[in-house]
Amino acid sequence: MTDRKVNVKPAEGKLGVLIPGLGAVATTFVAGVEAAKRQLGAPIGSLTQMGRIRLGKRTENRNPLIHEFVPLANLSDIVWGAWDLHGQNAYEVACRSRVLEQGLLDKIRKPLEAIEPMKAVFDPVFVKNLQGVHVKSGPTKMDLARQVMADIDAFVARTGVSRVVVLWCGSTETFTPVSDVHRTLAAFEAGLSESHPEIAPSMIYAYAALKKGIPYLNGAPNLTVDAPALLELSRANAAPIGGKDFKTGQTLMKTIIAPGLKARMLGVEGWFSTNILGNLDGKVLDDPGSFKTKEESKLSVLDTIFNGELYPQLYGEIHHKVRINYYPPRGDNKESWDNIDIVGWMGYPMQIKINFLCRDSILAAPVCLDLVLFTDLAQRCGWSGVQEWLSFYWKSPQTGPGLAPIHDLFQQQNKLENTLRYIMGETLITNLGLDYYMDEV
Amino acid sequence: MTDRKVNVKPAEGKLGVLIPGLGAVATTFVAGVEAAKRQLGAPIGSLTQMGRIRLGKRTENRNPLIHEFVPLANLSDIVWGAWDLHGQNAYEVACRSRVLEQGLLDKIRKPLEAIEPMKAVFDPVFVKNLQGVHVKSGPTKMDLARQVMADIDAFVARTGVSRVVVLWCGSTETFTPVSDVHRTLAAFEAGLSESHPEIAPSMIYAYAALKKGIPYLNGAPNLTVDAPALLELSRANAAPIGGKDFKTGQTLMKTIIAPGLKARMLGVEGWFSTNILGNLDGKVLDDPGSFKTKEESKLSVLDTIFNGELYPQLYGEIHHKVRINYYPPRGDNKESWDNIDIVGWMGYPMQIKINFLCRDSILAAPVCLDLVLFTDLAQRCGWSGVQEWLSFYWKSPQTGPGLAPIHDLFQQQNKLENTLRYIMGETLITNLGLDYYMDEV
Amino acid sequence: MTDRKVNVKPAEGKLGVLIPGLGAVATTFVAGVEAAKRQLGAPIGSLTQMGRIRLGKRTENRNPLIHEFVPLANLSDIVWGAWDLHGQNAYEVACRSRVLEQGLLDKIRKPLEAIEPMKAVFDPVFVKNLQGVHVKSGPTKMDLARQVMADIDAFVARTGVSRVVVLWCGSTETFTPVSDVHRTLAAFEAGLSESHPEIAPSMIYAYAALKKGIPYLNGAPNLTVDAPALLELSRANAAPIGGKDFKTGQTLMKTIIAPGLKARMLGVEGWFSTNILGNLDGKVLDDPGSFKTKEESKLSVLDTIFNGELYPQLYGEIHHKVRINYYPPRGDNKESWDNIDIVGWMGYPMQIKINFLCRDSILAAPVCLDLVLFTDLAQRCGWSGVQEWLSFYWKSPQTGPGLAPIHDLFQQQNKLENTLRYIMGETLITNLGLDYYMDEV
Amino acid sequence: MTDRKVNVKPAEGKLGVLIPGLGAVATTFVAGVEAAKRQLGAPIGSLTQMGRIRLGKRTENRNPLIHEFVPLANLSDIVWGAWDLHGQNAYEVACRSRVLEQGLLDKIRKPLEAIEPMKAVFDPVFVKNLQGVHVKSGPTKMDLARQVMADIDAFVARTGVSRVVVLWCGSTETFTPVSDVHRTLAAFEAGLSESHPEIAPSMIYAYAALKKGIPYLNGAPNLTVDAPALLELSRANAAPIGGKDFKTGQTLMKTIIAPGLKARMLGVEGWFSTNILGNLDGKVLDDPGSFKTKEESKLSVLDTIFNGELYPQLYGEIHHKVRINYYPPRGDNKESWDNIDIVGWMGYPMQIKINFLCRDSILAAPVCLDLVLFTDLAQRCGWSGVQEWLSFYWKSPQTGPGLAPIHDLFQQQNKLENTLRYIMGETLITNLGLDYYMDEV
Repeated sequence: MTDRKVNVKPAEGKLGVLIPGLGAVATTFVAGVEAAKRQLGAPIGSLTQMGRIRLGKRTENRNPLIHEFVPLANLSDIVWGAWDLHGQNAYEVACRSRVLEQGLLDKIRKPLEAIEPMKAVFDPVFVKNLQGVHVKSGPTKMDLARQVMADIDAFVARTGVSRVVVLWCGSTETFTPVSDVHRTLAAFEAGLSESHPEIAPSMIYAYAALKKGIPYLNGAPNLTVDAPALLELSRANAAPIGGKDFKTGQTLMKTIIAPGLKARMLGVEGWFSTNILGNLDGKVLDDPGSFKTKEESKLSVLDTIFNGELYPQLYGEIHHKVRINYYPPRGDNKESWDNIDIVGWMGYPMQIKINFLCRDSILAAPVCLDLVLFTDLAQRCGWSGVQEWLSFYWKSPQTGPGLAPIHDLFQQQNKLENTLRYIMGETLITNLGLDYYMDEV
Repeated sequence: MTDRKVNVKPAEGKLGVLIPGLGAVATTFVAGVEAAKRQLGAPIGSLTQMGRIRLGKRTENRNPLIHEFVPLANLSDIVWGAWDLHGQNAYEVACRSRVLEQGLLDKIRKPLEAIEPMKAVFDPVFVKNLQGVHVKSGPTKMDLARQVMADIDAFVARTGVSRVVVLWCGSTETFTPVSDVHRTLAAFEAGLSESHPEIAPSMIYAYAALKKGIPYLNGAPNLTVDAPALLELSRANAAPIGGKDFKTGQTLMKTIIAPGLKARMLGVEGWFSTNILGNLDGKVLDDPGSFKTKEESKLSVLDTIFNGELYPQLYGEIHHKVRINYYPPRGDNKESWDNIDIVGWMGYPMQIKINFLCRDSILAAPVCLDLVLFTDLAQRCGWSGVQEWLSFYWKSPQTGPGLAPIHDLFQQQNKLENTLRYIMGETLITNLGLDYYMDEV
Repeated sequence: MTDRKVNVKPAEGKLGVLIPGLGAVATTFVAGVEAAKRQLGAPIGSLTQMGRIRLGKRTENRNPLIHEFVPLANLSDIVWGAWDLHGQNAYEVACRSRVLEQGLLDKIRKPLEAIEPMKAVFDPVFVKNLQGVHVKSGPTKMDLARQVMADIDAFVARTGVSRVVVLWCGSTETFTPVSDVHRTLAAFEAGLSESHPEIAPSMIYAYAALKKGIPYLNGAPNLTVDAPALLELSRANAAPIGGKDFKTGQTLMKTIIAPGLKARMLGVEGWFSTNILGNLDGKVLDDPGSFKTKEESKLSVLDTIFNGELYPQLYGEIHHKVRINYYPPRGDNKESWDNIDIVGWMGYPMQIKINFLCRDSILAAPVCLDLVLFTDLAQRCGWSGVQEWLSFYWKSPQTGPGLAPIHDLFQQQNKLENTLRYIMGETLITNLGLDYYMDEV
Repeated sequence: MTDRKVNVKPAEGKLGVLIPGLGAVATTFVAGVEAAKRQLGAPIGSLTQMGRIRLGKRTENRNPLIHEFVPLANLSDIVWGAWDLHGQNAYEVACRSRVLEQGLLDKIRKPLEAIEPMKAVFDPVFVKNLQGVHVKSGPTKMDLARQVMADIDAFVARTGVSRVVVLWCGSTETFTPVSDVHRTLAAFEAGLSESHPEIAPSMIYAYAALKKGIPYLNGAPNLTVDAPALLELSRANAAPIGGKDFKTGQTLMKTIIAPGLKARMLGVEGWFSTNILGNLDGKVLDDPGSFKTKEESKLSVLDTIFNGELYPQLYGEIHHKVRINYYPPRGDNKESWDNIDIVGWMGYPMQIKINFLCRDSILAAPVCLDLVLFTDLAQRCGWSGVQEWLSFYWKSPQTGPGLAPIHDLFQQQNKLENTLRYIMGETLITNLGLDYYMDEV
């Protein structure tokens, strides 16, 4: 064990979680935490709640629960708030979403009903398929940002929370490339004041949060805190940021299987991925335009893991296709079918087919919880800006300038766990272990 | 970069590879290497031939080929020898096995025909479904061991190789529990002299090899160098050992996917695995007795990875079934179908189905090659006994006393790569990387 | 339209349905009918309730509902009775079986609770895995048969039904080959009097029913009304019989797909079928002995459809394997995976894989209903003995002496529909239809 | 047996088969027939070559081979000719197509090389992705038609064939709706003379053939002999026609499975079909425009079989999606994945997934052969116009006016077989079979 290098502030007081976008994912997250607090269900899928971490040598048998090892906020200290353009409370939304059983929802009806969303910042230009009925209005985008900051202040005053994390669970916004208005904080603030058309609602939330020194997490694939202006604000105000796009379903499976094939140096000629899903998300993505944005994010995963430039013979030309199909009979569930054409010794072809019958919100909810708790920890560690050690949770992880993202789930896991060990002054795990066999090592 | 800690002898001279069991796997291995030497095919699946290793920081972009980073034997320095009970040469066996295309085999007919097997040590008690026609005879098992040693001496004399590795590619022998005769070298040698019934042919080969200080690798699931007597001999004579059971096909997939589910703390209720295969291996394993041995080895993988004792709520009761079915239409190919019942947030069930159309010998051949080359490297590093750093290649990796095996492919990969870095004095990779973002780390 | 050839008695009065074996299948059947009577659910899968039949030329557009075309009993005229060895009422059993939703069961709790089973005829020799607590006792098997007849008389007296059908929904009994005691009615009755060990409980029920002129249907694969003695009794007492083994799940799919491959003269090299199921049925069939009986029945389907004797080149050597695996996570559902190796033009191989996530009782219930109603119709047509026209519903259809069974679902459907047309004096459909194109036909 | 009603002319002399479009399907057909003639391979998948037909009662055991029952042309009497825009001979095309093994092709190289295509009628407006280098030119489309007729005359004169069938194996042409120029023969001929833009190359071939009283078969989904003008010509010149689109692969499976689900009255909520294929066909259909045409044809199959108008509760709203994806690693093979969401008793959902690894040309070749031989038979029966009895072979079968097509493979099979029985004066099969059980029937 080495000396403690990080001075972590304790998790004193309540932790506010403020969510723009109170839909299926958000309410499954909130309802699950409320159920777990009452022992009505287990927060399965959450590393912070269920996971253990190996410390020291294998022979020491030290495997504490993560939430007993690092100082995380307790579930019982979480206080909820949200913005949403429909105006329904969390109970109504959860019932409508048909993810969790009605029986369970009814047992936690009260705390869910108490979550009445604040009016949303909304702009139909950025999400074509939705209509806002519970939205803010104001003369400029800067004015809207100030309204959001006022919401946050009121929330803090009302609830007495000592810390806040903002977590975007809203819809995917239209693709917006980085332009001048996003490049510096000064340009961005000028843009807010003149209601620049390339400033999306999500950026207004992010600005408001970071301006107040509050961490911001982006669960969707649109541009937000990866805009340089907001990264600058994040570092200036000591607020960690995270993004983007929760890693669930088919992409999760890809970042599990692709590293396995790569580890064994099996070649890949093609990877065909199709998805059928019947919820609103499916309907939105059935549109070729919206799909394009999602596709970009999904396609890059394999390129980065396989690295065809370094391995032209094995991965130089992968035919990677991703299809998303709106298919109402699947309802809120989601199903993927992948066909992988691999190549072995002397070029012999083999095939792997994977059929995953999954549930999107069920996979996303524990990711929300872990991100909130770990990001709060990061802030108490004194860290700001990009938190690459949380790449584990993102479909398209943000990195520092000049650093290629790591998509391999197992390198991400190693990074996350060694970061926790580092924070607590424990020896990093290298899996070397020659000392079990030799004296000299 | 730290100082070099390991003094590796150079790979001078030829490397003899001696194989008990010249069947489909062995000839696919041999023929593939001969083809690769002539640029007739690529040794895909082989880390030593195709793989690269990251060194230093990500920003350094140092990713040398492994065979340029560590001093491995060249393919052109390999010289082949074999023992087999059928007496056919490698060309005849390869043609009969129908794994590689006839067109390719014909181009390397000459070197394959030159591999005429020596007479095998064979005992029908240990493999019920085979008949030996090209076998040694002698008054005692010790006498057979001496014949094998004489074979090795003659091979060395004839070929002038400077080093040898012995690699078992024979059939699975009957299950043999460790008993007194296996516990010490003294007892074992006494047992050889009196032809003790619990000494299997594979142990006779292993004894002969280790007695001469030659590494021995066990590609099958039967007891050999995991017997304490042979481990003792291995350490005494500075010869590394390795085993057991090449990791290919369905088990490879399991050790890829199970760590992924575990990383994300997704629960597992059941894992049903069925296999159809049409070759001799399938016929042998269709017998409930032989299958039992294989099943034991296959079942333990999930238990170790998921560790239900530490995670009773997630992995406490996994219904894990493995079935192997002899199905002649599949021929030499192999197909697996897995159904995995997983559990997420609040206990919601999801399903994953995996259909793998694979080729057994094609997946095993590069494993043979890497094991031979890395084990030769280990010996030149001055290492003996168990080589846990090569767990990556084994279905049931041998470990030191009191150490649970690591089955997770990615921990195995990390261990292997960090061992190579350690040998060459490079910094071990921990994936921490906080220094990209902070000055103080 | 031709002249009516069959004089069908009207379906006057109530129809009693008496069920030996009140388990998951029986209660799903009964509860579904009760729900359908109250418009709480649709009897999907039932030809008699949902199906239509084409009459005359295609251009006539005559497609009446079957239950409006032939004089069937109405659902509202069905009255239930049962025998069972556990003694629980139908509501208790249905809740325990977890097939239908609790919410639905609660809406029909009253009629289900009213079905209190009579004491069963039970003999542990014939079903090893069950224990009887609610069973009849008597000095001889003939005495037990008389008790069953008395039960029937009491049921008729109590309910005032005008007709009765007996439907076996009990467990599969041990394999019993036909022997002398089953060959004539005289031998069988002597056997009953002396409690012959080869007379199974199911035969006692069948004897009692047929003795009273009541039709008997056998939903399991064991020997019952296919015993010559009982066939003799059936004809003597003008009571139709039917069997055996409800056609559901994987076998249903086989009798759909195999005729399609055969129609197109595609060769078949192998058909590998595996099943995972987690209910009691799965547990029983996990035993190699019980499985053998089921396997025999399942294997014959392909042989009959493909007829390898007539088509040796295409179907002469089909590797057909059927596996059933007890896998608790699947619960009351059932899942099958089939791999079919087919052969086309010039011998080129192709593969079909089918994964069926089905529900056994849900598929069996409508089969029960149709069999009861059509068998009652048959009796009112004056027909007795084997009803081959109902082969459509049986995994192993009983036929007249010297007649090979028809397994092809579409020939079975054609036979059933043409029989209904025949009964009502409508032209049989041959699909010729040349008259649409030519005058002379 | 009834009296013979059809006077069939004998199959005397040679039969010419003229093929517009000498690609993968055509050469697989031709090469396979040439191989079968030399006993080098079996024409598996061909009813005319491998099939038998049941005659009379089941107990008669009369099951002659179809080609011994009806007077079909012998394979040895077939003489080949073709038109193609590339100009390569059949051997060159077959090698390039990589469907049949090179070893087989080399054994029949001579007869394949002898098939030198004539110059094609080609118009890039109708097939955007191809370029013609071996094409006819002329002042008007009527002139091109006359050139085709001259080609036919020259072929007949050169080979001495007594009869000819023309079989379109070319690419799918752009969607062309029926317009005035297609409605009468007079309008069509006027259109030819003025080179009307809505007359496609395939129509020019069809006109030329029918004008000479030669049957024409359309293996693609474009409009040809289903144009009223050509139907009129067909009847006037006593030449049968057939179309359209060979039924293979996924649609074949649909017309097998859908009738099975319908037979059992299982509801269908959705049917999702995706295809991956890597040949030219896949590239063409990857274009949304071309796909639209194909999709129309593929979607109608389920609507017709399930008939949601008659069965609104079961099939009123089927979410049917068909996707075709160009995926080069699949090469000339083709793979489909279907997910079917079905509904049973009381509305309970079940799922069927089908993965078909097929080969397009291998499935199409026997369809070509049977269509040619049966259409020649039809002409010798004195039949002209639509041959609905051959619906069995078409994805989108042509019917007489006012008649809905039959897509159910088993009704198609019944129609085909009963037509053959009718031709030969055998009793039609109704599957009634009550006479096995009762005297009076």
